[in-house]
Amino acid sequence: MKIWQKNIDVNQFVENFTVGKDRELDLQMAKFDVLGSMAHTKMLSTINLLTAEELKEIHHELKHIYQEIEEGKFIIEDSVEDVHSQVEWLLTQRIGEAGKKIHSGRSRNDQVLVDLKLYFRSCIEEMVNNTNLLFKELIALSNTHKDKLLPGYTHLQIAMPSSFGLWFGAYAESLADDMELMLAAWKITNKNPLGSAAGYGSSFPLNRTLTTQLLGFDSLNYNVVYAQMGRGKTERILAQAMSSIAATLAKMAMDVCLFINQNFGFISFPAELTTGSSIMPHKKNPDVFELIRSRCNKIQALPNEIAMMTTNLPSGYHRDLQLLKENLFPAITSLNECIEIATFMLQNISIKPDILKDSKYDYLFSVEVVNNLALQGVPFREAYKIVGEQIEIGTFKPQTEVNHTHEGSIGNLMNEEISKAMENTVNQFGFEQVKQAIKDLLA
Amino acid sequence: MKIWQKNIDVNQFVENFTVGKDRELDLQMAKFDVLGSMAHTKMLSTINLLTAEELKEIHHELKHIYQEIEEGKFIIEDSVEDVHSQVEWLLTQRIGEAGKKIHSGRSRNDQVLVDLKLYFRSCIEEMVNNTNLLFKELIALSNTHKDKLLPGYTHLQIAMPSSFGLWFGAYAESLADDMELMLAAWKITNKNPLGSAAGYGSSFPLNRTLTTQLLGFDSLNYNVVYAQMGRGKTERILAQAMSSIAATLAKMAMDVCLFINQNFGFISFPAELTTGSSIMPHKKNPDVFELIRSRCNKIQALPNEIAMMTTNLPSGYHRDLQLLKENLFPAITSLNECIEIATFMLQNISIKPDILKDSKYDYLFSVEVVNNLALQGVPFREAYKIVGEQIEIGTFKPQTEVNHTHEGSIGNLMNEEISKAMENTVNQFGFEQVKQAIKDLLA
Amino acid sequence: MKIWQKNIDVNQFVENFTVGKDRELDLQMAKFDVLGSMAHTKMLSTINLLTAEELKEIHHELKHIYQEIEEGKFIIEDSVEDVHSQVEWLLTQRIGEAGKKIHSGRSRNDQVLVDLKLYFRSCIEEMVNNTNLLFKELIALSNTHKDKLLPGYTHLQIAMPSSFGLWFGAYAESLADDMELMLAAWKITNKNPLGSAAGYGSSFPLNRTLTTQLLGFDSLNYNVVYAQMGRGKTERILAQAMSSIAATLAKMAMDVCLFINQNFGFISFPAELTTGSSIMPHKKNPDVFELIRSRCNKIQALPNEIAMMTTNLPSGYHRDLQLLKENLFPAITSLNECIEIATFMLQNISIKPDILKDSKYDYLFSVEVVNNLALQGVPFREAYKIVGEQIEIGTFKPQTEVNHTHEGSIGNLMNEEISKAMENTVNQFGFEQVKQAIKDLLA
Amino acid sequence: MKIWQKNIDVNQFVENFTVGKDRELDLQMAKFDVLGSMAHTKMLSTINLLTAEELKEIHHELKHIYQEIEEGKFIIEDSVEDVHSQVEWLLTQRIGEAGKKIHSGRSRNDQVLVDLKLYFRSCIEEMVNNTNLLFKELIALSNTHKDKLLPGYTHLQIAMPSSFGLWFGAYAESLADDMELMLAAWKITNKNPLGSAAGYGSSFPLNRTLTTQLLGFDSLNYNVVYAQMGRGKTERILAQAMSSIAATLAKMAMDVCLFINQNFGFISFPAELTTGSSIMPHKKNPDVFELIRSRCNKIQALPNEIAMMTTNLPSGYHRDLQLLKENLFPAITSLNECIEIATFMLQNISIKPDILKDSKYDYLFSVEVVNNLALQGVPFREAYKIVGEQIEIGTFKPQTEVNHTHEGSIGNLMNEEISKAMENTVNQFGFEQVKQAIKDLLA
Repeated sequence: MKIWQKNIDVNQFVENFTVGKDRELDLQMAKFDVLGSMAHTKMLSTINLLTAEELKEIHHELKHIYQEIEEGKFIIEDSVEDVHSQVEWLLTQRIGEAGKKIHSGRSRNDQVLVDLKLYFRSCIEEMVNNTNLLFKELIALSNTHKDKLLPGYTHLQIAMPSSFGLWFGAYAESLADDMELMLAAWKITNKNPLGSAAGYGSSFPLNRTLTTQLLGFDSLNYNVVYAQMGRGKTERILAQAMSSIAATLAKMAMDVCLFINQNFGFISFPAELTTGSSIMPHKKNPDVFELIRSRCNKIQALPNEIAMMTTNLPSGYHRDLQLLKENLFPAITSLNECIEIATFMLQNISIKPDILKDSKYDYLFSVEVVNNLALQGVPFREAYKIVGEQIEIGTFKPQTEVNHTHEGSIGNLMNEEISKAMENTVNQFGFEQVKQAIKDLLA
Repeated sequence: MKIWQKNIDVNQFVENFTVGKDRELDLQMAKFDVLGSMAHTKMLSTINLLTAEELKEIHHELKHIYQEIEEGKFIIEDSVEDVHSQVEWLLTQRIGEAGKKIHSGRSRNDQVLVDLKLYFRSCIEEMVNNTNLLFKELIALSNTHKDKLLPGYTHLQIAMPSSFGLWFGAYAESLADDMELMLAAWKITNKNPLGSAAGYGSSFPLNRTLTTQLLGFDSLNYNVVYAQMGRGKTERILAQAMSSIAATLAKMAMDVCLFINQNFGFISFPAELTTGSSIMPHKKNPDVFELIRSRCNKIQALPNEIAMMTTNLPSGYHRDLQLLKENLFPAITSLNECIEIATFMLQNISIKPDILKDSKYDYLFSVEVVNNLALQGVPFREAYKIVGEQIEIGTFKPQTEVNHTHEGSIGNLMNEEISKAMENTVNQFGFEQVKQAIKDLLA
Repeated sequence: MKIWQKNIDVNQFVENFTVGKDRELDLQMAKFDVLGSMAHTKMLSTINLLTAEELKEIHHELKHIYQEIEEGKFIIEDSVEDVHSQVEWLLTQRIGEAGKKIHSGRSRNDQVLVDLKLYFRSCIEEMVNNTNLLFKELIALSNTHKDKLLPGYTHLQIAMPSSFGLWFGAYAESLADDMELMLAAWKITNKNPLGSAAGYGSSFPLNRTLTTQLLGFDSLNYNVVYAQMGRGKTERILAQAMSSIAATLAKMAMDVCLFINQNFGFISFPAELTTGSSIMPHKKNPDVFELIRSRCNKIQALPNEIAMMTTNLPSGYHRDLQLLKENLFPAITSLNECIEIATFMLQNISIKPDILKDSKYDYLFSVEVVNNLALQGVPFREAYKIVGEQIEIGTFKPQTEVNHTHEGSIGNLMNEEISKAMENTVNQFGFEQVKQAIKDLLA
Repeated sequence: MKIWQKNIDVNQFVENFTVGKDRELDLQMAKFDVLGSMAHTKMLSTINLLTAEELKEIHHELKHIYQEIEEGKFIIEDSVEDVHSQVEWLLTQRIGEAGKKIHSGRSRNDQVLVDLKLYFRSCIEEMVNNTNLLFKELIALSNTHKDKLLPGYTHLQIAMPSSFGLWFGAYAESLADDMELMLAAWKITNKNPLGSAAGYGSSFPLNRTLTTQLLGFDSLNYNVVYAQMGRGKTERILAQAMSSIAATLAKMAMDVCLFINQNFGFISFPAELTTGSSIMPHKKNPDVFELIRSRCNKIQALPNEIAMMTTNLPSGYHRDLQLLKENLFPAITSLNECIEIATFMLQNISIKPDILKDSKYDYLFSVEVVNNLALQGVPFREAYKIVGEQIEIGTFKPQTEVNHTHEGSIGNLMNEEISKAMENTVNQFGFEQVKQAIKDLLA
């Protein structure tokens, strides 16, 4: 069944190919489709395209469907091609004529657009909350382990003393910066495309400002052609923001796989959180972090995939855009899982004590010695030469006390400032206002 | 000559391979290297690593070098490997011992980091200003041509009436949204990494808050390990922001190439702005827009290239990062050129009048007819069927008057609101504060 | 249940994360896992690690399982983590002790490697066969429509006469070239990794030459470290070969979407193979080709995704590689569907007659006029100027008879030679030998 | 100066933008442009578009220009837009009227196509030869160090014994497989596009078979529309083949950076081939391998970049394609440099003796112990459990003699077979025939 069919049966082969995974993926948007319809119909009633009576009937049933969705009772039938048709069909089945009027002044194009925006808003909120939990775990670990030193590497060569305080804190601060990109994605997402119809507006005297308020959007995608252009663009920008979190996680996972390797041996995890080998009984493999790394690298490739699928398409809707759901929806789930399991794993990390007591790390302290000479008045370049020669001829003596005091150094992590920066960014999303608007709409 | 050499000559073959294009690319960072050294030395003097006298001497000469750079007299000699060494070498040549002290408490790693950040800030400012000019041109064109209709396509099929007001305005609004991403890139860029040394901080009692203020940064990359992690990450995020502008331009260029094609024939450019063919004397090719499209698609691939070059590198500096300059610096120049020439070309665009009078565009108006029936009380789905049948049997009569009034539609472009949104975002960059700080530092 | 478990329960949360989609995806490899085990055990019996009796018992039951798989009766139970464990577990359940011996001298690593190679071989065969059918359809259409002219565009500007003979034939020849890349992928795939164990070989006196013959491989991945390195690399190269077919299809789909657009109007499809609009009753949208384009562009992004997930991983197995199945398996299915539906759609294409009679295409013939002058002795550059001036002042007269005779031109398509080239490449795969080997193994 | 100009000056701003880096990059194609013109004109004389006298004059001067190019005396003047115009202009300057006739029956489009193909052929030959040298170095190193053991890792966890014989040999075999992809690129490149003119053929009775023979091509791009479609496609496929070599090199570089790290410490290079730090006098950084890794990862991103710039372009030439030279030409140079310097570095590698004597590697031998039990008749799964328990309770005793004998294992590297496979693939390119054809043409 296709609502728009003109008594012509589309070949079944073609139908299967075009519907693709829509039924499965659309389920994730079902709640938001209902919300979009509630706002749209409320607006229609203000411009006399629905009577107060019809509106009441429609809203009553839409709330009912919303509840069915929340209870997991909603399905998209095989004879229906997408979530929009399913909701409209249910409505018409249940309340008759009034149901047929809800599509006035809109197109499936702007219906999908608004559903996606509402869905992405909820996804962003979940990703931000998960990231915030991981952030807090990292800050806590940084504080707990602030005095445990480990070698700092440059060029993967032993370089200078570092600490687990620095290491955990660095990834926390990285996540804080990632939230800036996510905030940009949020701002671009949190604008109302509804009313753009098929991408060229409508001859109905729609009140887009009203639906903007009803759905808790910050503002509109004003220009209707641009509203449609936002499809694909919103996805790409959201994927870019996700890729930034993913890059942070993947890098941390690479560090973990290195640090857990026996040649480094800096950290370990309980046996039940590692996996074994089918032929090597001694193995305790960091599979979870390898999979975090791999999944996150896949997510890092996602913005490019979206760009490849949308570039060089002229303006106006193209069916190509439908497939972006297949890329992005599972990636959001995957990223959330990665953030959650990373948090879980880190809660169980063990750190080897006294790593730097091993004499192979003595050279870590060469800069300290150079700096000490410099503080005593030897020009830096000469101090450098003196210590270099000591190392060359084997007379170098490390000075293993680390006394770094400046902002962001081993002795002064500034985790409070980093936490404030994170909090400041997270607060700018304004999730509460959005929730209140949705609550009001459903009231 | 390598300042850090230990009386061992690095094989020439290796040297050429490792220096790569650094001398050429580093020139673009020269001014910023001097600024970084001015701030660093001023700070050193406050912690007694330089005397007031030494500082005065150093600043005097650094300002002199800054001026030489501005006058185009500064070069990086073949015997010197990079801009940092060249500046330090010049200084030492000219003022002697004091010059050797400026490297105290920093590493080439944080020197590059701060140079890049300062350079990227200036690049972002230039890109934002150029984008703003293009934005204003698009808004002006949208207003000028707001009554000129053109067909709106979906699936590249004739769909509904659109207008040049909408078309120009859509790309303007797209640029306004792109600025959100650029603002995120700016925020991530505008934090001070100086003082992170080789990525693990310094035993000197550096005052990083002071250099942050002196260089006009908004805040610090607090954690020194994270400061180093910002290399590659800053580049990737900046490239992502650039890719968003590039995507907007590429899409517009695709539209232009289509609209100038003789089958569409909606727009044209003066002969001197198009190019000919070596064997077809009638051709007037839109090469400029084809090249904008191609360059911008290359820029769209840039974030992925950067990710590919940085992914799975453990934390800590790796020489791999050096090559990112080769990718990003020319891309910034290229994007600026694309924005400029797009603005120039659009200033010369001609639009064909009365496009929709051609009868092949009659069906554009079918939704209007459906909507009219709906406004008369026919349920939307039934009105749709009626008009569909009229089209099928050839009795459809278009109603060519377009009367769209809602927000963002043909008759109500909301270009003022779009301009306000753009202005609001651009104002958040705070370029003026940054300029003032640099002016004070150079005073 | 994990066969390799050491009486330690891996945390359930971790287990779900690490198993991922393996159970679902591994089903596609089940048949090949059985074949690999049959070859491996046959070889084990020749080096006295299995008795003739045990081998007989094992082979009898493995063939039974093979049949169950073919009949769709095989499942991977929730308590079992992958296909390899399931097959081994079934075997042990059914024949006891002997089942436990089949894993001697191999690791899950080389088991997956050989399963993937066998699976990819069957996928390549299917893709090649499907491509060949599309190729033949294109050649047939090229021959059928060889006299139907259409405008040839350069810079998307009307340029010179082309024909549907050329247009269909070009995509056929493109597919023929794509097969060269697929052949390279085949050659790299069709080498035996079995016997590499965990990537470092085995102390058992394995006979890898024997398993190579039994499984119909062309040769071995000799070096066992390289055999493991083939994981990820084989996938990337196969994806590159697929991306080449995908690029051909995507380009053809773009042409189709353009040619079916009303401004071009060169081709059409029956109404039942196009789709409609929910608000525009006149639309006949080329959704199938838009989705072919989109899916194929996604496939074009696949090699990059694989590279992103594998780059900078040191040698040796990493769990990261497990996820490549999730990318590649569905992409193979998707590409096959695209090739099939493209063939189906093209069987139903209609071509508008006499396209070039429209006067807007007159300039197409300007080169013909220039060439005619040149054939009459006027130097080419002067003939070009003469015709250019005629066009400029409006006196140009087209000469609409096209008489192209050289190899590959409108009048001489050389479809037979193109077909021979295709046939020649396809024959080099040697699918028959492979089939015979598998048949012998199962006998 | 533009040869095709129609007395209209193209705006200078536009000209600079459109010419881009063509003059610089085209120099690399100059020799091949001359060769293309020699073949084309020889063919023109056989169809009476040039007299024997004119041909003689033209060939005499083209050979002269060819020699000037070889001697480095050829330049593209600022007033000339590309190499094709420069050669034609020189010719006309020097021999008058006859020079103007050489463009008959071709377009700049097929001139660029054939130049690129000829240029890429020479590039492929150079890359294959360089790869072959690196291959031989790796095989030699594998043979030399075949008895030196190192730990084999899976999941970056100590797994089983490996050897430098295996390690070097694995990368050699990887390169041998990479040559299969390069051979596919060669086959696709080594087909003649000349005669396709602007992509739609010519009304001249061209003899494309003749130019195919004269230029030593293996066959033709038959269909002229496909010949044009080869632009972008050839580049992408060549980039894919290059990316495969690059992936091999990048992986090896990652291993080197890990193995040279002090926690592993398996290999080292002479001090003059490593670099130092500006603040850490003890550092010996593997910059060369970091830069190989980075450059090669950039090359791994190249096919995607090309795809992004060409996808969704309809058939027919677009100016977008011009920019692909900017991506691919420097990448070819870069890859050759990476292969050369990798060969050079490996000639200087030192390997630490007796790595496995360190007790931390004892568990490497656990599989040997398991296998021994299995060879004594204990079912594999039970032997595995026994050894697992020994490790768990600390009673495990390694058995450090490695006795691997099967094909491709530590004791049986099969480097001769790998060398034969390499030789067999390299021989299929047929560089000699190509060289002979060019020699004949220039004779």
